[in-house]
Amino acid sequence: MAGEIIITVIGNLTAAPDYYAGTPEKSAFIAFTVAQNTRVFRNGEWRDGNTVFMRCTAFGELAANMAATLDRGDRVIVYGRMQQREYTDREDVRRTSTEVIADEIGPSLRYATAAIGEAANAAASAPEKQRTPDKTTGTSARKRTRSPKSEPALAEAGAKAPF
Amino acid sequence: MAGEIIITVIGNLTAAPDYYAGTPEKSAFIAFTVAQNTRVFRNGEWRDGNTVFMRCTAFGELAANMAATLDRGDRVIVYGRMQQREYTDREDVRRTSTEVIADEIGPSLRYATAAIGEAANAAASAPEKQRTPDKTTGTSARKRTRSPKSEPALAEAGAKAPF
Amino acid sequence: MAGEIIITVIGNLTAAPDYYAGTPEKSAFIAFTVAQNTRVFRNGEWRDGNTVFMRCTAFGELAANMAATLDRGDRVIVYGRMQQREYTDREDVRRTSTEVIADEIGPSLRYATAAIGEAANAAASAPEKQRTPDKTTGTSARKRTRSPKSEPALAEAGAKAPF
Amino acid sequence: MAGEIIITVIGNLTAAPDYYAGTPEKSAFIAFTVAQNTRVFRNGEWRDGNTVFMRCTAFGELAANMAATLDRGDRVIVYGRMQQREYTDREDVRRTSTEVIADEIGPSLRYATAAIGEAANAAASAPEKQRTPDKTTGTSARKRTRSPKSEPALAEAGAKAPF
Repeated sequence: MAGEIIITVIGNLTAAPDYYAGTPEKSAFIAFTVAQNTRVFRNGEWRDGNTVFMRCTAFGELAANMAATLDRGDRVIVYGRMQQREYTDREDVRRTSTEVIADEIGPSLRYATAAIGEAANAAASAPEKQRTPDKTTGTSARKRTRSPKSEPALAEAGAKAPF
Repeated sequence: MAGEIIITVIGNLTAAPDYYAGTPEKSAFIAFTVAQNTRVFRNGEWRDGNTVFMRCTAFGELAANMAATLDRGDRVIVYGRMQQREYTDREDVRRTSTEVIADEIGPSLRYATAAIGEAANAAASAPEKQRTPDKTTGTSARKRTRSPKSEPALAEAGAKAPF
Repeated sequence: MAGEIIITVIGNLTAAPDYYAGTPEKSAFIAFTVAQNTRVFRNGEWRDGNTVFMRCTAFGELAANMAATLDRGDRVIVYGRMQQREYTDREDVRRTSTEVIADEIGPSLRYATAAIGEAANAAASAPEKQRTPDKTTGTSARKRTRSPKSEPALAEAGAKAPF
Repeated sequence: MAGEIIITVIGNLTAAPDYYAGTPEKSAFIAFTVAQNTRVFRNGEWRDGNTVFMRCTAFGELAANMAATLDRGDRVIVYGRMQQREYTDREDVRRTSTEVIADEIGPSLRYATAAIGEAANAAASAPEKQRTPDKTTGTSARKRTRSPKSEPALAEAGAKAPF
């Protein structure tokens, strides 16, 4: 058995993420596109390959934290699972969208540092089963955290690493 | 042909990273261990699986930025390539270490936000070919960036995403 | 830097692959779709998730060997790189296709055994740089190897390359 | 959440696999090592990188099918999950082994064809919970399937691929 298709996408946000804050009944939700510029080795040299634009979504606390952290152009690492979704566009054409449901998102430290802050908010981590964003509270606004983490949380680290 | 073994590791830093600042001749270097706590489904229920401790290294600017960003216990996403290295330990026993050469590192936004800052420093991105850390300048110290990025760099984002 | 998006797809062939035998000037080429049935854990139990249909292509000797080995319904492991391609369909609608350029393909041994045979033929591994299939020799025909395959029997017909 | 570390290893079997046939109480089991020869791009050219030797295990029907299919030197694709195991070697030295629990295994079609055959045997797919190999029936012998699959199983293929 192989469960879902696991994928890691690394690139820049093509725009500010679309964020829908959660309600007590509905989980927060975020949607964004990552542009991964590939490099290919052909005929003896490295060249720019085609850019892959990957549509991604995330839910709950992860969505809220991303909304408070990342903006257009930021370089990001997205780890998740491939999904396909069929929809009808504005011209009434049926389309299939290949997307990533993100389980982990992080700003890349390749060209930048980051100051880690507290989780964005509690309300976001509402009901896991509810996965439809609340359109009425939808907003693409985004605020960076103001308060850098005062004390690093050491709790989760394995204290007895064998090596 | 399949090049190197690609791997994404997600977990918590077991300790503050060991960081060696670069010199004009030698690239910066960082070494750290990520503890990934796995969950397995067995006999009808989810249980904690064994923790995998993965030794990782990174070089140059990525190493400098990580040193300025991440500390013990922080949750991190590491994308890189598997490597094996043989060495002799203090008791003179030959050992093989399976490690990850990191190409991308980012703090996970699953349980935290982050304020993106400027790159840590120029000196770090010294000669790519030099991969031996300068032990005399080695330090495991680490400072968080103080200044949140004033202006987000939008340049790299694809301005013309087709969807 | 992260090069291309690496992906492993595991599932069943939705149809016999479309195979185009190579010429001295043009590399062989194969196109096929893998249906990966996912399993998701939601609300306390495992359920069938959506099926992901992934379009894949391969070139040269790998394409020739696949054509001689795999047929509709066979379970297959595909390792490769994500690519996006824009095209215009029969109704003149612009579409983007997210596909996998396969570097490695193998029949899955999860539910079947296999007898390994010789490589399909030499002609297939023609010029690496030439990646456009020869449309005039295209064929979707396919024969299984008989044991050590005696002849590289890859016929000629006039099918049309899908892209 | 990120479950286990997912990995795809592609290379050649360093030796015939060690296979332990199952009993009614114990699942079949197979252990083998894959040598993946990496290529690295350094100082303007491709060179052979270090070889990574990855220890792998599989269980049940997959183990039985692999035993009936693959031998020393065969090129193989292994998809699975990273695991670490501690053990004491013959010189009484404590060691940690980083291994792959294989979920899917297939012979690579890069340099060879294959004739797909029936599943190796029913006995192998014994109790899932029992993961200790039966040492008394252990054998590293291996037989290729003789009978090519008479009728391809088309059942599992998605008949209604949208593209």
